[in-house]
Amino acid sequence: MKAAALAGGVGGAKLAHGLAQVLPASNLTVIVNTGDDFEHLGLHVAPDLDTVMYTLAGIANPATGWGQAGETWNFLEALEQLGGPTWFKIGDRDLATHVERQRQLATGQSLTETTKLLCAALGVGPQVLPMSDDRVRTLVQTDEGELEFQEYFVHQQCQPRVTGFRFSGEEAARPTPAVLNALDNADVIVLCPSNPFVSLGPILRLPGICERLARRATVAVSPIVGGQAIKGPAAKMLGELGLEVSALAVARLYAGWLQTFVLDQADADLQGDVAGLGVRAVIADTVMRTIDDRATLAREVLEAAAPQVAA
Amino acid sequence: MKAAALAGGVGGAKLAHGLAQVLPASNLTVIVNTGDDFEHLGLHVAPDLDTVMYTLAGIANPATGWGQAGETWNFLEALEQLGGPTWFKIGDRDLATHVERQRQLATGQSLTETTKLLCAALGVGPQVLPMSDDRVRTLVQTDEGELEFQEYFVHQQCQPRVTGFRFSGEEAARPTPAVLNALDNADVIVLCPSNPFVSLGPILRLPGICERLARRATVAVSPIVGGQAIKGPAAKMLGELGLEVSALAVARLYAGWLQTFVLDQADADLQGDVAGLGVRAVIADTVMRTIDDRATLAREVLEAAAPQVAA
Repeated sequence: MKAAALAGGVGGAKLAHGLAQVLPASNLTVIVNTGDDFEHLGLHVAPDLDTVMYTLAGIANPATGWGQAGETWNFLEALEQLGGPTWFKIGDRDLATHVERQRQLATGQSLTETTKLLCAALGVGPQVLPMSDDRVRTLVQTDEGELEFQEYFVHQQCQPRVTGFRFSGEEAARPTPAVLNALDNADVIVLCPSNPFVSLGPILRLPGICERLARRATVAVSPIVGGQAIKGPAAKMLGELGLEVSALAVARLYAGWLQTFVLDQADADLQGDVAGLGVRAVIADTVMRTIDDRATLAREVLEAAAPQVAA
Repeated sequence: MKAAALAGGVGGAKLAHGLAQVLPASNLTVIVNTGDDFEHLGLHVAPDLDTVMYTLAGIANPATGWGQAGETWNFLEALEQLGGPTWFKIGDRDLATHVERQRQLATGQSLTETTKLLCAALGVGPQVLPMSDDRVRTLVQTDEGELEFQEYFVHQQCQPRVTGFRFSGEEAARPTPAVLNALDNADVIVLCPSNPFVSLGPILRLPGICERLARRATVAVSPIVGGQAIKGPAAKMLGELGLEVSALAVARLYAGWLQTFVLDQADADLQGDVAGLGVRAVIADTVMRTIDDRATLAREVLEAAAPQVAA
């Protein structure tokens, strides 16, 4: 079975890692959000790509959800002494990723090609693809004005109240041929438990993506469990946007084209409501605490999609 | 007494540090070679400026002559794993200097302004000035072709045989107003024991520099002691260019405008020959092994220039 997974950062990377444990590497493509990429210190920083790469390479920092395990911070300390900007935390080893990516981009390589080289160097087996080689930038509209995503997410720690989103550059952005090819060749498309607005949203808004999802076997894992996000501002955003803070609200966002929605045990009571949207609801343990949990959930997700794949 | 010192890397930085120990900070300006600056990993790297800054800040690595003491190498290790270029050794803390300099240059600051900010952050008292805000690049002409300076110096470890030099960009380059002002206001101008071709050469070739030196009290310390360079390729270059490998050959290069030349004890026999060039020769212990040696030599150098200053 060939799978394509759409992923943002932490939660997405965990399920992608689960899929990587249960599928041959050549049968898995992970398509990653680049809407929260940004320029920092003159470098192209791609937080979601990095989290997915590091997680699949087994070098991610499990405590933070970003960066590398066993990281050192001497660069950042020295930068602070020099009066440079240190609100975005870059470890010494992590910095090499940004510098090498920037170096390759500067030679004219695409983000797709650069990601392929970095993954090869890190020993990542599955194909990891940025959603686009075009620049899309997620802007968070808040009661304090429109903020760049990292300004909202890292610098202001998601404090401002969200009123909406804008995706700068999306009019001209296209998914890459590699992304479209992976979707066209997938037996199942997995939407990882990532933020529906700012992690999967930028991918889903690219032209041609939802049309393809509507024609294929799709299964999404809820990023909301018991009315809370496992990590990140998804629940806070749902509330601030006046939506129900529950897995059901996420199912509604995807209902136009989604076949199967995986709810956590804690949300078993929502199964009927999800079914009422015309989406098959499946119950599983979706909270991935251990490496094994990731593989277990991946198996259940692929099984949940099996009836559609067979059809 | 106000002093301006012309300096390259290690030897220049040591005497500059000596001068900083014996003069009030406001009475010392160090004018530094930028001919061996280069672009690396997308960053403006200024090896001589960094060595002077780090030495004056007391954080230079005494073992290597470049970089910072107590440095760590996690960035470089990770970069190597990613297949990036690692022939130029950048430590984790050193990297912050290059990144912050590049960040400031990208905002439109000049190299002079950027250097001032970095020096302030590092607690460097004396004024440190790049020789120019214009781009001059030292190219080493060798039996293996014309090489960029760092390619010759670091990557090929000075192995190719030197036939000459070219200073790309020097036609359009000007010393900064700050450099000219420091020279015009100096009671004495000190030429540190730096390589006459590739460290002091690029400074001396800038328009207006030698004219100013000819009108003022000048004192140079020989970078050649007993026919050998204390550090670097100065002796090897003299030989390959068909010049005498001795302090006398250096004195000849400066004889057109130099007043006083400081020879090491080991070269006391050259005193008459130097005098024959119309340059006053003074003998001193010029090899700076300790921090105190630097101050001692600085005092002797200033004393050697005193008769001219008084005149």
